[in-house]
Amino acid sequence: MSSSESVKAIQWRDDHLLLLDQRLLPAQEIYLKFSQVDSIAQAIRDMVVRGAPAIGIVAAYGVALAAKKHWGQNASAWKTSIEADLKLLEESRPTAVNLFWALARMRRLIADIDAYPFQVLLHEAQTIHEEDYTANLKMGALGASLIAQDSRVLTHCNTGSLATGGHGTALGIIRTAFAAGKLRHIYASETRPWLQGSRLTAWELMREGIPVTLICEGAAASLLNVQKIDWVIVGADRIAANGDVVNKIGTYSLAVLARHHGARFMVAAPMSTIDRKVARGEDIKIECRPAEELLYIQGHAVGTQKAEVWNPVFDLTPAEWIDVLITEKAVVQKPDYSKIAVLFANE
Amino acid sequence: MSSSESVKAIQWRDDHLLLLDQRLLPAQEIYLKFSQVDSIAQAIRDMVVRGAPAIGIVAAYGVALAAKKHWGQNASAWKTSIEADLKLLEESRPTAVNLFWALARMRRLIADIDAYPFQVLLHEAQTIHEEDYTANLKMGALGASLIAQDSRVLTHCNTGSLATGGHGTALGIIRTAFAAGKLRHIYASETRPWLQGSRLTAWELMREGIPVTLICEGAAASLLNVQKIDWVIVGADRIAANGDVVNKIGTYSLAVLARHHGARFMVAAPMSTIDRKVARGEDIKIECRPAEELLYIQGHAVGTQKAEVWNPVFDLTPAEWIDVLITEKAVVQKPDYSKIAVLFANE
Repeated sequence: MSSSESVKAIQWRDDHLLLLDQRLLPAQEIYLKFSQVDSIAQAIRDMVVRGAPAIGIVAAYGVALAAKKHWGQNASAWKTSIEADLKLLEESRPTAVNLFWALARMRRLIADIDAYPFQVLLHEAQTIHEEDYTANLKMGALGASLIAQDSRVLTHCNTGSLATGGHGTALGIIRTAFAAGKLRHIYASETRPWLQGSRLTAWELMREGIPVTLICEGAAASLLNVQKIDWVIVGADRIAANGDVVNKIGTYSLAVLARHHGARFMVAAPMSTIDRKVARGEDIKIECRPAEELLYIQGHAVGTQKAEVWNPVFDLTPAEWIDVLITEKAVVQKPDYSKIAVLFANE
Repeated sequence: MSSSESVKAIQWRDDHLLLLDQRLLPAQEIYLKFSQVDSIAQAIRDMVVRGAPAIGIVAAYGVALAAKKHWGQNASAWKTSIEADLKLLEESRPTAVNLFWALARMRRLIADIDAYPFQVLLHEAQTIHEEDYTANLKMGALGASLIAQDSRVLTHCNTGSLATGGHGTALGIIRTAFAAGKLRHIYASETRPWLQGSRLTAWELMREGIPVTLICEGAAASLLNVQKIDWVIVGADRIAANGDVVNKIGTYSLAVLARHHGARFMVAAPMSTIDRKVARGEDIKIECRPAEELLYIQGHAVGTQKAEVWNPVFDLTPAEWIDVLITEKAVVQKPDYSKIAVLFANE
């Protein structure tokens, strides 16, 4: 199943959205069809689609579909009646800021519209989608430029085409570096509980013929100890004004372990992931998901039933643990409040 | 299913050994019957039984059964012909030293026997079994004495009655401390890839009515960061002469993270786990198990098929990361070569 082209997990088709159902990968490659905003909100909640940038893009398409519905129901009151659906989308996942960023951008556009809104909002969603892809290509180039020949990298979760508008953030950098012949070895953690690493990252890389070795999270410290790992490269779900990063559970652990073992720690995320309204990481809401995510795997009971589980699906990596932050605008060494502010200075 | 008594996973019955099949827990509680040494070696290899002390005990029973067979086949040559079976047992798992320790002890006894060997070897296996249980009770008391009132503890893998002759090593200390009313909260990592935490530790504690909260390994750093954890308590599969500890994959990561977050790190293991023939941890063979342990869970394909996997099931925690080592003989603060030597001084 080798292919030179990345998978397209989010596709707009005429009047509906196609989403590759990421709950079923890698066993089944099934695209689901969405033409209603409420089912799109449900798809985000249920993780048919996941990954901070991808959630933002899908929510934007959801707004376009919502506008079509509300205009059709009452063309003079659609800007009021759409609010419930915007709220529905807003409440679908709490942590990744790209969702709120995309909804805010769509909301600003809604304020300016005074005719049939669907086409202009659809166009904006498509623009968000394309901009994300372009941003990822830029991040890929910026990040890969820091990676030396013959490097070994470790990544976490899935930050590739499946998680974004295409190419990927952290995985986009790995893709670009691999294409440039710079990578000696790519390691990916399986990423419990949802197994994004073993289900999605391995699938995405293998279908393009990019070799990857999976490890369980518990083996990361050993890997860093017995093998020289040059870079640990991860994405982000939300970055605070001071550079603190909230990302998939297990990220903070890798940051501490990377520093201890002399590996550098790189975070890649588009500007839309930076939430300057949040001063520091502690103020970001960390989503806790159900115990079943640990106790069941793909519907099969594996753990002790009725066991109590603490299942935060994101964690906070304070900025001081981050060696480099890559956005589509710049390489930021040792991110902090003032360097983050500079990124936005010319906006 | 609350019960005040610990599960008895290893039981000698008249002429055979009963082993609780740990591959099937917690879904099924099935005891398998063993009366042949080769099937006992296979059971160790396949992880019907696991846990360093438990493996040693079961191997000792295997030697008794082997002696019965070889004496029956040729009473004058049994000490020669039993060698192949001793080797078979020796090769069943490579890392935990209790296996080799128990076999060496049985071998010494074999050298002294000049009559029908079965009863005396069975008695020795039963003695090893009982001594391990007694050692665990002592470790429980010694370890619990260091734990302050209202403590929160985090443990890894399964080190309880299922992994030992009863009560447990690290989990034995937790049991004793819980019985003394000292524990405010017990956390257990699910322990990928074999899920000893979510399948075995949670099951073992819950059936005795001891509350436990499961986390995935990736969440350990967050837990240590957001919650004051007083002790991380783990077992060991082999301890080198200098105090380096080889234990379940993920242990080293917890040691580094515990130190960083101000939690103390306690290792509990019987004297039989200390291998003074090995100068340092780097000299201990770390078993790598098949990729299938990550890609399949309970027989169900979950990861990307044919993905390359690095699956070392143990890791090395250098002695300098260990705050306290508990054996049945003593509490050893900051273990090192000379303190380990002192433990054996009066043997």
